[in-house]
Amino acid sequence: MPSAEINKVREYWDRQGSADVRPSIEEMRLYDDYWATLTGEPGQVDYIDATVGGVPALWAIPKGAVWDRVIVCFHGGGYMMGSRYSHRKMYGHLAKAVGCRALLVDYRLTPEHAHPAQVDDAVASYRGLLEQGIRPAHIVFSGDSAGGGLAIGAQIRARHSGLPLPSGSMAMSAWTDMTLSGRSYDSNRSKDSVFRREMVGGLVHMLLGAEPDLQNPYVSPICADLRGLPPIYLQVGGDEGLLDDSVMFAERANAAGVDVKLDVFPDMLHSFQMAAGRAPEADDAVSRLGTWARPLLGLAPHR
Amino acid sequence: MPSAEINKVREYWDRQGSADVRPSIEEMRLYDDYWATLTGEPGQVDYIDATVGGVPALWAIPKGAVWDRVIVCFHGGGYMMGSRYSHRKMYGHLAKAVGCRALLVDYRLTPEHAHPAQVDDAVASYRGLLEQGIRPAHIVFSGDSAGGGLAIGAQIRARHSGLPLPSGSMAMSAWTDMTLSGRSYDSNRSKDSVFRREMVGGLVHMLLGAEPDLQNPYVSPICADLRGLPPIYLQVGGDEGLLDDSVMFAERANAAGVDVKLDVFPDMLHSFQMAAGRAPEADDAVSRLGTWARPLLGLAPHR
Repeated sequence: MPSAEINKVREYWDRQGSADVRPSIEEMRLYDDYWATLTGEPGQVDYIDATVGGVPALWAIPKGAVWDRVIVCFHGGGYMMGSRYSHRKMYGHLAKAVGCRALLVDYRLTPEHAHPAQVDDAVASYRGLLEQGIRPAHIVFSGDSAGGGLAIGAQIRARHSGLPLPSGSMAMSAWTDMTLSGRSYDSNRSKDSVFRREMVGGLVHMLLGAEPDLQNPYVSPICADLRGLPPIYLQVGGDEGLLDDSVMFAERANAAGVDVKLDVFPDMLHSFQMAAGRAPEADDAVSRLGTWARPLLGLAPHR
Repeated sequence: MPSAEINKVREYWDRQGSADVRPSIEEMRLYDDYWATLTGEPGQVDYIDATVGGVPALWAIPKGAVWDRVIVCFHGGGYMMGSRYSHRKMYGHLAKAVGCRALLVDYRLTPEHAHPAQVDDAVASYRGLLEQGIRPAHIVFSGDSAGGGLAIGAQIRARHSGLPLPSGSMAMSAWTDMTLSGRSYDSNRSKDSVFRREMVGGLVHMLLGAEPDLQNPYVSPICADLRGLPPIYLQVGGDEGLLDDSVMFAERANAAGVDVKLDVFPDMLHSFQMAAGRAPEADDAVSRLGTWARPLLGLAPHR
């Protein structure tokens, strides 16, 4: 049975899904702060504002972190909300679980900035890290929701730019498919009051404009040539409208020969890892990410 | 007319004041996160977890801060809630306004820890700073609500312990009087649904126990011998139940020869400075604190 603490995630989404009035962009962005209240403060994590590769960012640095290993984190928010601050605690937990530094990238948002601003910023921040001397094999990408798609799309883009790839990526509730082909939009519609085709379609419009290329591989990595990508670990909630964005992506990545791992968490909703530090389900998920990433980064299995 | 943004402060308190069921301690502490949503992220402020004088604390360090000047900050929350995290943004704004570092002290809370744990921790953190080589004249205390009282009470205690005093203190909506003698509890009762004698009396009980010494100078600095204290700047909302805790304290401090400045902000409620980064009233108040503190700390009038 879901914990009382994880039910706060459901309450949060249900409150948004049941709003009578469509909120303005400004109001939606204020929700970021409420989103962040789902997460417990990790503690013993320092937060340093920075600019990396010309992109605003936030270092989340656990005490005792291995300095030359880095998780590059792309926050969620449908490409139009969220920030390095809304997600600092959640990625702070992840950084603690891995035992290294995390860099939260504040890529530009829609509707002020359409595609490819987001993937440009993602790659620029990665390039900036490489220029700081961090080895690609010591970097892992991560992201939730839109940021989960970006964690994969940015690799496609980085490869097209001739950059070496990171050691792997970890995506939570990734949005990988702008064509909205997932059947889970239908099968989970009664359970997920927010991530429905009509809402997500609005996000597509803001990102890609009036004549969208829905199969653009940088924002729809499910449509990309995935061969040669490093290992990918996908986590997704069983009750999500976006469930199939992970399930179908895992199938295609697997068919392309990618080392892919998928965990579907029963009864969970979108980005439930935001309840890290509060809910056992979220802490378990974050712990699994840490266990997966440490050997990938050449670290001992346990901190 | 109060700004739309500052009305969020009123909504926050009204929601608490109108709660049907008395929440548990745990639930009240979860409110900390919602309290923190009132504050905009200051940006370009780094946050470093630390232990100073044996007390958990958080450094809030604006980019370009003068390193050897420090605001020692005591958060509000009736001595039983609040933390270095709930108030990091608000004191981050204050640190930016002054242009120096801020140290948010995570003193122990009631009901787990009764008086004098709070004032002991406050003095221990101050002593720790002095041992780091920071000069007393380069330190200013600050606090809101219970922390505002603590900012003054800790000076009384520090003096009794033979420590030199800081250069001054800045108190927002300070709770200075455990005897609850303020007439503003009555005159502002209809405007302030939270800070009423019955609620505040409960906090007194948690802090001082069944046979309280209500005139204890460390927690009721309004009852203390205030002669010789360095300058004090008090800010308080005109609609607060705790209004007189500042007004009467200013009168007594003035009578004791202390250089005291009092600003009463019309229409404002308790700790409205928590809306810094969002509401012009809060930003104005924080700006005034910065203007007041800079010369006190030997800094040029403007950053």
